[in-house]
Amino acid sequence: MAHLPATAPVTGRHLIADLTGGTGLGDLALVEQALRAAAAAAKARVLGVHLHHFGEGHGVTGVALLAESHISIHTWPETGDTAVDLFICGPAADVEAGLAVIAGMLGATIARQQTVLRLER
Amino acid sequence: MAHLPATAPVTGRHLIADLTGGTGLGDLALVEQALRAAAAAAKARVLGVHLHHFGEGHGVTGVALLAESHISIHTWPETGDTAVDLFICGPAADVEAGLAVIAGMLGATIARQQTVLRLER
Repeated sequence: MAHLPATAPVTGRHLIADLTGGTGLGDLALVEQALRAAAAAAKARVLGVHLHHFGEGHGVTGVALLAESHISIHTWPETGDTAVDLFICGPAADVEAGLAVIAGMLGATIARQQTVLRLER
Repeated sequence: MAHLPATAPVTGRHLIADLTGGTGLGDLALVEQALRAAAAAAKARVLGVHLHHFGEGHGVTGVALLAESHISIHTWPETGDTAVDLFICGPAADVEAGLAVIAGMLGATIARQQTVLRLER
């Protein structure tokens, strides 16, 4: 979250999703673009994007650190799997829109998803 | 996860926890130490640690990118809140041990926790 005053409620939505299929799961530049586009769609502000490529034929691990928490992605082109989580604080956040952007850019199908409410009192 | 052969099961445990209380929630060096110690306790290999400090009196956002996925942490000293998630693939992972290390190093109490099985077939 943007660091709101202590009197503000500190709550967030944490959307966790496993995706299957798609293309470009080993494409570092595409994964970075997907993280940044997801943050924009979710109405979050990117502080930095950090990525690691596991090598030719393998996947990518990446995270966008946000003013409102984070979006992470892990891809396995070997099996056609992608794991995503979007944890975004604040009332403006649209985690579902962010997930839809990632799935769309990778051409992947959302196999399952779950939302956890975070930091509820 | 370490990028196992495509025939290996790609599964992981994703432990999500909200913590309350503790000290040093605004201490960047402590948060980095906690991430690295948590990865070691969880039997995961750190690829890199990335941190952002929101400024004097405010919190820290950080992530450890792992060969086996990631550990993230977001702290709010203003309200005494810490949000953690540990997503670690592979049979050796001990996400609970990692969480215990983070809570212990911050002197924080685990207010709630939940484990999501990831990438199950």
